[in-house]
Amino acid sequence: MLSFLDALKRILVGRPFRTERLKEAPLRKRLALPIFSASALSSIAYAPDEVILTLALAGLGAMAFSPSVGLAVMVVMLVIIASYRQSVKAYPSGGGDYEIASVNLGPRAGTTVAAALLVDFVLTVAVSISSASHYVIAAFPALDGSQAWFATAGVVVLTVLNLRGRGRSKMGTAAPVYLFIGVVLVMLAAGGILAATGTLGTAPSAGFEVVPDPDYPHGLTGLAGVLLVLRAFSTGSAALTGVEVPISNVHKLAAPKARNSAAVLLLLGLFAGALTLGTMYLARAVQVRVVEDPATGLRLDGGPIPADYIQHPVLGQVAEAIFGGASIGFYLVLAVTVAVLLIAAHTAFNSFPNLASHLATDGYLPRQLRTRGDRLGFSNGILALAIAAIALIWVFDAHVPTLIQLYVVGVFVSFTLSQLGMIRHWGRELAQTPDKRVRARIHRSRLLNLAGFALTAAVLLIVLGTRLVHGAWLAVLGIAVLFAMMDSLHRHYVQVDRELAIGEDESATALPARVHALVLVSTLRKPVLRAVAFARAARPSKLDAIVVDADSERTEATLARWEALGIPVPITVLASPYREIAPPLIEHIRSIKRDSPRDLIVVYIPEYVVGRWWEQLVHNQTAMRIKNRLHYEPGVVVASVPWRLASSDASMDLGPTEEASAGAKPMPHPAAPQISNPKDKP
Amino acid sequence: MLSFLDALKRILVGRPFRTERLKEAPLRKRLALPIFSASALSSIAYAPDEVILTLALAGLGAMAFSPSVGLAVMVVMLVIIASYRQSVKAYPSGGGDYEIASVNLGPRAGTTVAAALLVDFVLTVAVSISSASHYVIAAFPALDGSQAWFATAGVVVLTVLNLRGRGRSKMGTAAPVYLFIGVVLVMLAAGGILAATGTLGTAPSAGFEVVPDPDYPHGLTGLAGVLLVLRAFSTGSAALTGVEVPISNVHKLAAPKARNSAAVLLLLGLFAGALTLGTMYLARAVQVRVVEDPATGLRLDGGPIPADYIQHPVLGQVAEAIFGGASIGFYLVLAVTVAVLLIAAHTAFNSFPNLASHLATDGYLPRQLRTRGDRLGFSNGILALAIAAIALIWVFDAHVPTLIQLYVVGVFVSFTLSQLGMIRHWGRELAQTPDKRVRARIHRSRLLNLAGFALTAAVLLIVLGTRLVHGAWLAVLGIAVLFAMMDSLHRHYVQVDRELAIGEDESATALPARVHALVLVSTLRKPVLRAVAFARAARPSKLDAIVVDADSERTEATLARWEALGIPVPITVLASPYREIAPPLIEHIRSIKRDSPRDLIVVYIPEYVVGRWWEQLVHNQTAMRIKNRLHYEPGVVVASVPWRLASSDASMDLGPTEEASAGAKPMPHPAAPQISNPKDKP
Repeated sequence: MLSFLDALKRILVGRPFRTERLKEAPLRKRLALPIFSASALSSIAYAPDEVILTLALAGLGAMAFSPSVGLAVMVVMLVIIASYRQSVKAYPSGGGDYEIASVNLGPRAGTTVAAALLVDFVLTVAVSISSASHYVIAAFPALDGSQAWFATAGVVVLTVLNLRGRGRSKMGTAAPVYLFIGVVLVMLAAGGILAATGTLGTAPSAGFEVVPDPDYPHGLTGLAGVLLVLRAFSTGSAALTGVEVPISNVHKLAAPKARNSAAVLLLLGLFAGALTLGTMYLARAVQVRVVEDPATGLRLDGGPIPADYIQHPVLGQVAEAIFGGASIGFYLVLAVTVAVLLIAAHTAFNSFPNLASHLATDGYLPRQLRTRGDRLGFSNGILALAIAAIALIWVFDAHVPTLIQLYVVGVFVSFTLSQLGMIRHWGRELAQTPDKRVRARIHRSRLLNLAGFALTAAVLLIVLGTRLVHGAWLAVLGIAVLFAMMDSLHRHYVQVDRELAIGEDESATALPARVHALVLVSTLRKPVLRAVAFARAARPSKLDAIVVDADSERTEATLARWEALGIPVPITVLASPYREIAPPLIEHIRSIKRDSPRDLIVVYIPEYVVGRWWEQLVHNQTAMRIKNRLHYEPGVVVASVPWRLASSDASMDLGPTEEASAGAKPMPHPAAPQISNPKDKP
Repeated sequence: MLSFLDALKRILVGRPFRTERLKEAPLRKRLALPIFSASALSSIAYAPDEVILTLALAGLGAMAFSPSVGLAVMVVMLVIIASYRQSVKAYPSGGGDYEIASVNLGPRAGTTVAAALLVDFVLTVAVSISSASHYVIAAFPALDGSQAWFATAGVVVLTVLNLRGRGRSKMGTAAPVYLFIGVVLVMLAAGGILAATGTLGTAPSAGFEVVPDPDYPHGLTGLAGVLLVLRAFSTGSAALTGVEVPISNVHKLAAPKARNSAAVLLLLGLFAGALTLGTMYLARAVQVRVVEDPATGLRLDGGPIPADYIQHPVLGQVAEAIFGGASIGFYLVLAVTVAVLLIAAHTAFNSFPNLASHLATDGYLPRQLRTRGDRLGFSNGILALAIAAIALIWVFDAHVPTLIQLYVVGVFVSFTLSQLGMIRHWGRELAQTPDKRVRARIHRSRLLNLAGFALTAAVLLIVLGTRLVHGAWLAVLGIAVLFAMMDSLHRHYVQVDRELAIGEDESATALPARVHALVLVSTLRKPVLRAVAFARAARPSKLDAIVVDADSERTEATLARWEALGIPVPITVLASPYREIAPPLIEHIRSIKRDSPRDLIVVYIPEYVVGRWWEQLVHNQTAMRIKNRLHYEPGVVVASVPWRLASSDASMDLGPTEEASAGAKPMPHPAAPQISNPKDKP
């Protein structure tokens, strides 16, 4: 069983890498730009849809506002990018918002940012992959209904790729993003020319009427209208996720790191702005109609729409209007969009385990998330992300409009706290800077962060105010639970550290006076003889065999056999009126301890090593329970004496890594003069 | 957490009993009769229903046949009882059919009987309790729909009662059964008098028309009709379960055991026959109509029946016809029926764990089923039965007509093999008996068992032939799976026994030459110091500390600290290019073994003892993995050196049994001259 799983792992993940391969060449700007902006750019695949279908609740007239809402989102993005460009110069280590918040606002703010980002990374994967699966359906409508399966397959493929780790070509990631930018720009240009010449076609959904929601009978009027526009803006802010990628990856860039990162941020903003706004204007021009539920929200000639109508994403509909439905251009747009969405999810597969490993190192997450797997990736973090994303995909059936309600909360918590942290940072800098000119520059920087803080805090409030009831509560809950978990784990680690730290002159622990060994005997078979032999070999001050009399017939048989075999060790019978094993044994140990408190007691327990999983269920259960109980007794060491059953031979192999590390010889270490190499026998 | 569960267990189950309380007074005949026949008698609560509703598939005319089918079932019962009366004289130990089949037909036949009986005991509980819940609904129709909940509650109550074990009054079990027999006899007599005087009323369902199933358009004609009668007979044989109870409980009876058991069997047969046949004749007289699905199978004046119609059991409808719907007599019949059904299920709660414990002793089931719990019952067997029965109740929604399809298969497998075993038994007896008169008696006995075998084998074939597709396949599958499990477990135990048995002159196991101790060091904290101190106290021939270099920074820190603390033990660094702990350690151990093959290696591993469940997840994971791997290395003992974290204090308590067994002092044993009492210090 185990070796089958090992073999499967080897096939999927490949042979392990040596630690030395961890060093990597720094990333040039022209590769960093596409790799770091895939996440932000990919939102063109779903953000316009969300803005339009939210506005569609108030009817056709409201949908015309969508480019303006897109423009507002882009304004927020430009402010965030401007402030990030100066943050990255102040914190060029790649710690990102987590570091900024921790350093300036304290560890609890840092933990909050971390929890928020972890939740949003999971959502990035869920949303991007779900959206990608809808683009696949747009190309192959016959497969409609299998979105969740496609999405799951996508997550699994990305997981395996990331577990395989290093060795992937950077070009392989960068090229599709450039291709995406190029293809969409060409499409927008073509659309613009067609519009200018008055020959622009219409989207396949242009013929439908939009049925307004009964809550919005008069379009975008009154308070309800204002709130709906704000909600459209808040869902549209999904376009802002991924903006933080360049700043948390500064350390991977070629020098000058901070300046290169700032340049990447600027270009990212320009491209994202151009593509998003272009798409939204063209969507209005070709009269794309998308609604939350096509069956009730759309009508055709006053009657219901065809039952088999599948609503395609906005970008696909725009491409169809410009290039035609069965054209190469149309399929090319779908293909590069799927590619860039996958790369966006892939980015999260890098960010999540990295952040988790930072948090584990700082003692906020279990240490298992810190260790690198066979191929040097943070395997446990990768698997945790994949499981969480697949769970979300199935809970929400890969439905982007529902998933998007949870999105963006985390990233705006992070933006807001990071801006606040930078304001503090500048305040401290001001206090230390006497130079007037430098002070003026710091004042300007702080002003920018103040504006950024005001704006991001406002967006966060809008997000929470307009979408909390629509699903954002789940994201808030997730962040809160994660925060509580990390906080209590950290407190636990701190407490354990304090408890276990060795004091100044504590190294001279008092040695126990003598060793009193006990061998636990049940049925007298070979494993017991081995345990007795091993216990004798250790030459304890005192050696007793112990049999607990839970079943008098068996006890008699054991004693008779003990005598017949002439084993040269005294045997003690412990009465057990309630047929238990552990309590009489522990009572016996306590009475030994009472008589000679400084004795060390070593309990030898014969244990079976089995080969099949079900054999574990029928052996060792009593041994396990006794060991667990004994661990609570002070001054007791439990020594397991294993006996390998014949069935265990199959699983004795240590797997392929064994030969790989066969060369692992003891390595004398210059820093430790006491090192002894066991090869140097006396 | 653990102590909360312990407290709950103490409240539900009570304080533990001493083993001495196991002895019990033998059971007098007048108590044995009701206790042992409850299971057989209780089937009057559901067997007539099954016969009538199966026949109803062929329409109203077919239903008139039901008493004849009941008569056929009773004939089979009398033959089985007659042959059991002589079996019990030949095998008076209480091993029942399992013993008869094992001794005469070999262990595999015995295992088959055991598997079949275990499955049927589970079904006894599921069917009896489900039926009881329907009688509860007959009394309180407003609770219709909660049958499965009532049934589950019933199983839980019986489980707790049985876990509490001994101390229940035998009278408390016997009285309701006598009351049941009395009440039903009075009802039947009253019904007979009313019928004779022509004043017998009709059942509440008498006014309905019965819609024949489309498969049986012409009533009970042709092959289909014959098969339907056979199927009705086969479901009606549910009345025969429980007949085996007296024979498998002979050992509990007062002497002369075998003769008393035979007497109980005879009386059981007479009562069961009278009550079953009486009920079925009266059911026909008061025109009870029951069908599988009342909504489609019944009609009222040509139209559908009222939507809120609840079909009550036959016994309840008969009582209603005789005593009236809201009369004391009616409710009394319902109450005693529920009581006797509960006692029938309770009988299975005794039989199942007993048989399971026999099987565990013979090595066919895990040893855990052999041990007696706090209150001397076979707790694990009781829990296994309860879980299986509750699962069946929920899978089949406490629906008796579906559950009954699985029933009876097991008990007839057991009847048939037991009859076959007895034929063999008599054959062997004949071969050893020269006396002519005795031979003639043996010939007569064998003839009876031959008849019994022919009859029970025929019924088994009818059961399988007519009901395999209706659900009996699930019972067959259950028996087959259980058989395969028990068989492979037995082969495993036999193999282990052979592997571990100590040979004639094997007691002098060669002692290892020297002890080479290794202390595994990761982060240098107090637990490591303790492990070093304990290892030093054991005075091994050689002692090394080992640090595996999976993370060079941490290794450097550990070495520096080791030096600073001046720990007088050499430390060895093992290189680990693939960041693993176990493989380099094992390679190191193997190289030591290569150099000095007769050395015993003891690996000291510091281990945390934690208090909260989640702390186990964040500590000891690496230690556990290393221990598991080390168990596969020959000549290696793993010594866990526990360190109790402060959080573990809460769970340090051993629970109430600790004080209870505080008096467990070492007990010198006359059979073992080497016994040393640790109180007698030198």
